[in-house]
Amino acid sequence: MSALIKGFPEAVTITEVGPRDGLQSIAQWVPTEAKIEMVNGLLAAGLRQFEVTSFVAPRAVPQMRDAAEVLAGIDRSFGAELTALVPNAKGAERAVEAGVDAMVVFMSASESHNQANVNCSRERSLEGFREIVRIAEAAGIEVKGAIATAFGCPFEGNVPDSAVADLAKAYADMGIRRITLGDTTGMATPPLVQSRCRTLAAEVPGSDVTLHFHNTRGVGLACVYAGLLEGTTRYESSVGGLGGCPFAPGATGNICTEDLIYLLDECGVQSGVDGEKVAEVARRMEDLLGYPLPGQVMHAGPRLALKPRDAVRSSSGSAA
Amino acid sequence: MSALIKGFPEAVTITEVGPRDGLQSIAQWVPTEAKIEMVNGLLAAGLRQFEVTSFVAPRAVPQMRDAAEVLAGIDRSFGAELTALVPNAKGAERAVEAGVDAMVVFMSASESHNQANVNCSRERSLEGFREIVRIAEAAGIEVKGAIATAFGCPFEGNVPDSAVADLAKAYADMGIRRITLGDTTGMATPPLVQSRCRTLAAEVPGSDVTLHFHNTRGVGLACVYAGLLEGTTRYESSVGGLGGCPFAPGATGNICTEDLIYLLDECGVQSGVDGEKVAEVARRMEDLLGYPLPGQVMHAGPRLALKPRDAVRSSSGSAA
Repeated sequence: MSALIKGFPEAVTITEVGPRDGLQSIAQWVPTEAKIEMVNGLLAAGLRQFEVTSFVAPRAVPQMRDAAEVLAGIDRSFGAELTALVPNAKGAERAVEAGVDAMVVFMSASESHNQANVNCSRERSLEGFREIVRIAEAAGIEVKGAIATAFGCPFEGNVPDSAVADLAKAYADMGIRRITLGDTTGMATPPLVQSRCRTLAAEVPGSDVTLHFHNTRGVGLACVYAGLLEGTTRYESSVGGLGGCPFAPGATGNICTEDLIYLLDECGVQSGVDGEKVAEVARRMEDLLGYPLPGQVMHAGPRLALKPRDAVRSSSGSAA
Repeated sequence: MSALIKGFPEAVTITEVGPRDGLQSIAQWVPTEAKIEMVNGLLAAGLRQFEVTSFVAPRAVPQMRDAAEVLAGIDRSFGAELTALVPNAKGAERAVEAGVDAMVVFMSASESHNQANVNCSRERSLEGFREIVRIAEAAGIEVKGAIATAFGCPFEGNVPDSAVADLAKAYADMGIRRITLGDTTGMATPPLVQSRCRTLAAEVPGSDVTLHFHNTRGVGLACVYAGLLEGTTRYESSVGGLGGCPFAPGATGNICTEDLIYLLDECGVQSGVDGEKVAEVARRMEDLLGYPLPGQVMHAGPRLALKPRDAVRSSSGSAA
């Protein structure tokens, strides 16, 4: 069956990043067992690509200090691809030892954000990745390349297409084909999605692009819409929209996995994932964390879960 | 300047429905003066179409019991169109007396929702509208027609295009050209938006369609995207996303005006409204109500409000 919107692809692949991008900003400790249960629940829902954790310094991101234990606890029988973020060779070695299926290196499209985020220049970041690639090759696993601030930088403002294309080419030169465009601080817009996708298709034709949006300014799924119209088939999202800072509504994080699935389902785009089962995992995470997550479908329920007639007060005369 | 996305219109008109659809579900009394200040602030931001209030039974919707006082307090020097919802002839007479520029009648596309909402059949609703139209004609003002549950009914499920087209035709027969499709319980999806717009354009060619979405399942702005691609130039939204029930995240209401403006601005679609000024009004409403509103831009701030470099902790190594 083809999609219901002309120009949309028939099927897409979702990478669940809640365990990493979602949880990393949460100060409250999430027990290792809960992290494992979350991933195993999402595997049961049909997700097959995960950014499970990151092998960064435990001091820098305490929530990720159980990276190896989380990986060890995940059910491998589904044949899913489990990846982890690695900032340097030491992290890459820990990731290999823990049994990741692929590792993700990351740098920013803007110099000042790279400095602020990883405390070195983009050039030095790229140099460091060569060693990570060697470690991965020796272990027989793939390296994926993430480009942070790919749609704008909180310090520099707009980022040109050329800066993103240059990094994608540098990744390609190292043999890294799978590129993720990260909307780090929620600056992606539909026209930027369009121009990034077209620029990469033209200038780095061998690359396989994944789009990673944040819903910081409410247009996360509108950006997905733009990406789908460009034929992009890979998206990253977070169960329940995990990752928004609970007490600062402005810090809304990744787009929400089950809301993304709802959009895809309704547009006839196959994802192979059961959105209701993802919503169940989201509700369990909400219970565990003790505050509302930004996901909408997890609270509203399925579109066709019909209500008994007395659910609406008669004669309110106002539900236009 | 043309829009940045091919197929989008160059300009759209936003009708602000926060004072009516946003406030009506809020139990906490919003003082008349605050309602007036909200509308006057939005006028200063550039909005020129408002659904200001409803002339319903005060017992049924206590928040709207000051309808006439609110209308009397609004600055008319901007030449904005101020409309009010009217359920019956009595409401229409009160609305005329209070000086509305147009009135909005409403009924549901689905029989069971019409029964639940206004306690009568759709046929009887239509009969009642004839008297309202006479009252409006005598007063020299226009009547607009809203169709609730236009994208789905919480009791009956899917609603066919034909049910919506039939009501639009019935409205047209009464001389009502301006039709609003109401996404009463957040069941609109991009393919439904597409088919409703195309059906109405083909079957009720004289009608002027406004789209009114709720963000209940997170796809409100994706539905706007679909509407823009159909060339639809009229949208309804609520400042701050007002209307979501504060203590039930599932009850997210209307799409948020300043988030909609952000999407339009970034796509090069003119609205004539200053989104930052709308966000200021949203923040004042949030302070007044005492709980977070669902709007995103009001919390995140403008896309290019650059941060000082020390705003991001160095060496966190995690902001991919």
